[in-house]
Amino acid sequence: MEETVVKAIQDEYPDDFAWCYGCGRLNVAGHHFRTGWQGEQTVSIYSPDPEHLALPGFVYGGLVASFIDCHGTGSASLFLHRKNGHEPGDGAEPPRFVTASLNVNFLKPTPHGVPLKAVGTIQEIHPKKYKVEIEVFANDAVCALGEVIAVVMPSTFTKKE
Amino acid sequence: MEETVVKAIQDEYPDDFAWCYGCGRLNVAGHHFRTGWQGEQTVSIYSPDPEHLALPGFVYGGLVASFIDCHGTGSASLFLHRKNGHEPGDGAEPPRFVTASLNVNFLKPTPHGVPLKAVGTIQEIHPKKYKVEIEVFANDAVCALGEVIAVVMPSTFTKKE
Repeated sequence: MEETVVKAIQDEYPDDFAWCYGCGRLNVAGHHFRTGWQGEQTVSIYSPDPEHLALPGFVYGGLVASFIDCHGTGSASLFLHRKNGHEPGDGAEPPRFVTASLNVNFLKPTPHGVPLKAVGTIQEIHPKKYKVEIEVFANDAVCALGEVIAVVMPSTFTKKE
Repeated sequence: MEETVVKAIQDEYPDDFAWCYGCGRLNVAGHHFRTGWQGEQTVSIYSPDPEHLALPGFVYGGLVASFIDCHGTGSASLFLHRKNGHEPGDGAEPPRFVTASLNVNFLKPTPHGVPLKAVGTIQEIHPKKYKVEIEVFANDAVCALGEVIAVVMPSTFTKKE
C-alpha cells in the first residue's frame, strides 16, 4: 500500500498563499507537494510525472530540488504552527514561509517510476528562521540530501515592487 | 528586443541525453533551457510560464533552482567542449554533465512576467569536475545566486540499477 500524507500543512494555507507551483493546492498545473508530521519529523511523498526525467529512467534533479524546497518551507510552517499550539486540521491558519537558501547534494541517480519520500528534521535558528535537513528516499535508498533555510514570509512578497 | 541564445550547447547533446525536463530539446513537456557563450561567461534566458508562481507576481523558487541547475551543467559542458577545441555548431558531440551539488541563495523575490537571465562563471576543479557560479537576473537586478558542482556523467546514469 502506498504511503500518503493525511494532514498536510499546505491544505491549511490561506487561499492567497496557496498558488505555489510546487505545493499550492490552487495551482492547477503544479506539483501539489504535501507535507505532514511523522512523529517529530516531517514527510512528503510524491510520484514524479512521466516527463520529469534527467535521462530515461532517472528523475530530473530540478524536480528533486523543488521537492526539497517545498518540503523545507512546509516543514518550517508545521514546526512553528505546533510551537504556537496548533496542528494541521484544527482550523488555525498556519504561518507561511519562504526559502532563503536551498542546498542539494545529489548522492546517486534517483530512479524514476517509484514514489519519492522526503523526510525532514527541523531546527530553530531564530523565531522567524528555521533550518530543515532533508533526506530524499527512493526505494528506501537516500538519493539526495537537502538543507533549506526557511524564513517567515516577508512583506516584500505581498506587495509587488 | 528580447535577448536570445543563438548557439546553445543543449542543441548539440546526443539524442540519448536530450530528455532532461529542464533542458532537453526532446522533452516536449520540459522547460527547454538553452545555454550559450557570452564572451568568457555563459548565459541562459528563460521566460517562466504563467503557472510558475510562488505567489501571484513572483516566480517559484524551485523553477529558479531548476534554471540554475541546467545552466550549471550546460556551462560545464560548454567549458570542457571549448577546452577540447570545440564550439556549439561545429558538429562535434559535447560532453554531458550531471549535478553533484546545487546551492541557491534567494536574495529577493523574483518578479514574474519578465525574462530571467542566468550568467555563469566557470572554474575547473578537476578535468571531470567544474564549479559554476551563477547570477540570476530579472529586470537587471540579481534575484538569486547559485553554485553548481557539475561532473562528467558517470556510467551509473546510462545503466539502470
